[in-house]
Amino acid sequence: MAEAEIGVIGLGVMGANLALNIADNGYHVAVYNRTTARTDEFAASAGELSDKVTACATLEDFVAAIRPPRPVIIMVKAGEPVDAQIAALKPLLAANDIIIDAGNANFRDTMRRFTDLEGSGLTFIGMGVSGGEEGARHGPSIMVGGAEDAWKRVEPVLTAISAKFEGEACAAWLGENGAGHFVKTIHNGIEYADMQMIAEVYGVMRDHLGMDAPTIAAVFSAWSTGPLDSYLIDITAEVLMVQDAHTGRPIADIIVDAAGQKGTGRWSVIESQMMGVPATAIEAAVAARSLSAMREQRALAQAEFGLPAQHDRREGQAVIKDLEKALLAGKVAAYAQGFAVMAAASAEFKWNLPMATIARIWRAGCIIRSRFLDEIATAFTNDPDVANLALTPAFSAMIRDTDASLRRIVAESAMNGMPVPALASALAYFDTYRRARGTANLIQAQRDFFGAHGFARLDAEGEHHGPWGS
Amino acid sequence: MAEAEIGVIGLGVMGANLALNIADNGYHVAVYNRTTARTDEFAASAGELSDKVTACATLEDFVAAIRPPRPVIIMVKAGEPVDAQIAALKPLLAANDIIIDAGNANFRDTMRRFTDLEGSGLTFIGMGVSGGEEGARHGPSIMVGGAEDAWKRVEPVLTAISAKFEGEACAAWLGENGAGHFVKTIHNGIEYADMQMIAEVYGVMRDHLGMDAPTIAAVFSAWSTGPLDSYLIDITAEVLMVQDAHTGRPIADIIVDAAGQKGTGRWSVIESQMMGVPATAIEAAVAARSLSAMREQRALAQAEFGLPAQHDRREGQAVIKDLEKALLAGKVAAYAQGFAVMAAASAEFKWNLPMATIARIWRAGCIIRSRFLDEIATAFTNDPDVANLALTPAFSAMIRDTDASLRRIVAESAMNGMPVPALASALAYFDTYRRARGTANLIQAQRDFFGAHGFARLDAEGEHHGPWGS
Repeated sequence: MAEAEIGVIGLGVMGANLALNIADNGYHVAVYNRTTARTDEFAASAGELSDKVTACATLEDFVAAIRPPRPVIIMVKAGEPVDAQIAALKPLLAANDIIIDAGNANFRDTMRRFTDLEGSGLTFIGMGVSGGEEGARHGPSIMVGGAEDAWKRVEPVLTAISAKFEGEACAAWLGENGAGHFVKTIHNGIEYADMQMIAEVYGVMRDHLGMDAPTIAAVFSAWSTGPLDSYLIDITAEVLMVQDAHTGRPIADIIVDAAGQKGTGRWSVIESQMMGVPATAIEAAVAARSLSAMREQRALAQAEFGLPAQHDRREGQAVIKDLEKALLAGKVAAYAQGFAVMAAASAEFKWNLPMATIARIWRAGCIIRSRFLDEIATAFTNDPDVANLALTPAFSAMIRDTDASLRRIVAESAMNGMPVPALASALAYFDTYRRARGTANLIQAQRDFFGAHGFARLDAEGEHHGPWGS
Repeated sequence: MAEAEIGVIGLGVMGANLALNIADNGYHVAVYNRTTARTDEFAASAGELSDKVTACATLEDFVAAIRPPRPVIIMVKAGEPVDAQIAALKPLLAANDIIIDAGNANFRDTMRRFTDLEGSGLTFIGMGVSGGEEGARHGPSIMVGGAEDAWKRVEPVLTAISAKFEGEACAAWLGENGAGHFVKTIHNGIEYADMQMIAEVYGVMRDHLGMDAPTIAAVFSAWSTGPLDSYLIDITAEVLMVQDAHTGRPIADIIVDAAGQKGTGRWSVIESQMMGVPATAIEAAVAARSLSAMREQRALAQAEFGLPAQHDRREGQAVIKDLEKALLAGKVAAYAQGFAVMAAASAEFKWNLPMATIARIWRAGCIIRSRFLDEIATAFTNDPDVANLALTPAFSAMIRDTDASLRRIVAESAMNGMPVPALASALAYFDTYRRARGTANLIQAQRDFFGAHGFARLDAEGEHHGPWGS
C-alpha cells in the first residue's frame, strides 16, 4: 500500500508537471487534487510513467499511499488555500512527516506557518520553484527554506528533479524559515524588471525606429549570442517571430497591452521598502504593469495630449548597439538592487543567505536564467561580502562599458517620448550611487527648518540645528 | 477642578506647541507628559497662557482636570507608545470620552485601534496633523478620520486651532476610521516627492551649472512668485541663504548629505503597491533618501567610477527656465499619483474621501501648502470624479506647457550624470500614461509562453494562448 516516496497535492499546471518530473526521475509519487476529475485526468495523461504514480481520490488514501516519514509537496494557489490544505492534512500526518509548500507564498505567511506548526511534530519547508510549466516538468530552480536537517531528508529527490547547470543541480537550501520563499520573491521581482526593460527596448524599436515584429525578433535573436544571452531574450525573439494563424500578422501585434501580475513583484517592492534598500528597477516594472492595465485612461490621455513629437532619430545600427548595452546596464542595476535587498533581509532575519549559491541555482531552470548569473555567481564567490554587485571588478567593468549607451538611450527616449522608466531608474540609481556628495544636505536643512529634526555637520560630531529665523 | 475643555498627552515639540495653540485660542487645556520634568518645563514656558493651562503630574490628575465628556489628544511617538498610552488611559476614562491620536500613525494601526475600542464606550479619532513645529503652534492642517458625530463634538476647537486659507479653516472630517491618517500618510509621501524634486533641481544648479548656494537661493526666491509658489520653495530659498556662523560658508554646504526618514514615505509606497496604483515619484524620493544614507558606499563608488563627464552645457537662463517648468511638471505627476492612490483607497475602504476638501485643507498650515493646491481644489470641485488630475483642463494645460522643459532637463541630466530620479519618473509616467498602445503585449506574450498565463486579443473576446512551440 504505502509505496510512494513522496506526495504532491494540487494538480494544476505546476503541480501536475512537478509530479511527472518526480516520476520521471524514478521516484514513486502519490498525487491528490481537490476535484477528483482533475486527478483522473492527470492519471490518464501519465502514460508510461503510470506505474510510478498513485492517483488518490481522498486525502486519507493519499496519506496512506506514502511511506512514512512522508514528504508532502503542496502546490496550490498561494494564500488561504495553503492554510486550508495544511489544516486538512495535519490530523492525517504523523510525527516527522514534512509538509513542503512549493507555491508562490509570501514569505511572511511562510514564517507564520513555521510558527503555527511548532510543537506539532511535523516539519515544514517553504520552497520556491521557478521555471514555469516547462521547468516544473523537466527541471526547475528550487529554493529551499527551513531546517537544514529537513532539507537533508528531501535533498535527493529535489536535487534529482531540479535543473542542472553544467551538471550542477539548481536546488539548494538557502536558510531557515522563510528564506526560500523570500529569495523566490526577489527572483520574481528581478524577473519583472528584466521583462520590463526588454519591453522598453522593444518599444523604442517598434515605436521610435518603426521596426516590425520579425525585424525586432532578429535583433533579440542576435543579442542572445552576446552578453544578454538568457532565456528571456530567447523567448522574446521567439514570440516576436510567431505569426497569428487567424490574421497572418505577428501575434505580438494582436495581443492586448495590459499585463497581469500575481503579487510577487509588489511583495518585492514592499519588502525592499521595509528594509530601506532601493529596488527602483522593480518599482518601475510594477508601476509599468499597473499603468498597462489602465487602458481606458491611457486612451483618454492620448486623445488629450497626443503622442510626443519625434526628434533626432539616429541611424538604426548605432541605436541598436546602444539598446543592447543599455539593457545590459539596466540588468546590472536590477540585479545589484535585488541582491542588496536579499543581503539586508539576510541580516534582518539572520538567514545568512549564500549569495553565490543563489546566483548558481538561478543559472538554469528558472525564468531569469542567463549567462549573466554565472558571472554573478563568480563575483560573489570571489567577494562574498561586497556591499553592492556594482563594486565587484566584473560588474564595475560592465558599468563602465555600458554607461555611455545607457545615457544616450535614456536621453533620446526622453526627447522622443519613449517611456523607459526602468532603464531611466537604473541610470538615476548609478548616478546617485556614484556621487560621494549628494543633495540630501538640502533635504536635511528643510527638515530641520520645519520640523527641528536636526542634521549632522561635515566638520563636527553630533546633532545640530540651523540658525533659521534667528 | 474639572475646568479643562480638552487634554493633551505628550509634550514633545508637536504636543507642546499644539497645547499652546489650543490655549491661545481660548480653550482651557490640561497637559500631561510621562516624564514630569518635561511637564514642569512646559508649564514654566507657558507665560501669559498659564491660566489656560493645567499641568498635571499624573494621568489620574490629568483625566480629573478635564470636563466630561473629555476630548484627549495623544501626541506621542507613533507605534507601541500610542498603544501603551491608550491602555493606561482606558480605565480612567468614562463613556463618550474621545481619544484622539494626533501622531503620525500608520492608518492600519489606527484601524486596529478603532476595532480594539469598539464596545468600550470610548470614541476614537485618528487625526493627521501637518505643519511641523510652527504649524502646531500657529495653525496646522488637520485631517480627521472617525465617526462624523465624534468630529462634530471636537470641530469647534480643531477648527479654531487650524490654519486658515483666506479665512477658511484647514481642518476637516475626511471619512470614517483610518481616513485621516491615510490622507496624512499620502500628504507626507507627496512631501517626500516635492522635496526630492527640489533637491534634484538644486543638484543640477550646484553640480552642473556650478552655482553657489546664495545664487541658487535667488533662483528659488524668484520662483516663489510664480506657479511654484509654495512653502517648500520659500524655505529652500531661505535655508540656502543662511551662512554658518562657525565657517562663514553657506550652511547647506556644511550639512551632511544623508537624509532621515520616519516611515510615512515608505508607507505611502507600500499602500500604493497594495492598491496597484503607481506612485513612482514617491518611490523615487524614498529610494533617494535611502541611497543618501549609504555615504560610505557612495564614496567607494565615486572612487571606483569617478563622476560622469560633462556634456553640452547650455546657457544658464534657458536652463533655469526649464528647471522651473520641469519642477512644475514633476509636481503635477507627484500630486496626480498621490490623489490617484487616495481615490483607490477611498474605494477600497469605502471612505468616500472628498478630494476637493483634501486639497483645500492642504492650502495652508501644512508642509506642502502652495498656490498649486488651490488649483487642485478647483479642479476637483469642477470634476470630482476625474480619473486622474492630469486629465483636468487646468492640469493638462500645465502638462502641455511644461512637457518640453521636463524632457530637456531629463535628457541633459542623463547626458551629464546628474541624477534626477523623481523628475525622470514623472516623465516616464506621463509618456506611459499618454500612450494608448503600450508594450505590455510583449510581457503578456512572454508570460503566456513560460507560464501559460493566457492573454487577451485586440480582435476577439476571451482568454487566448499562443501557438508557441507548436
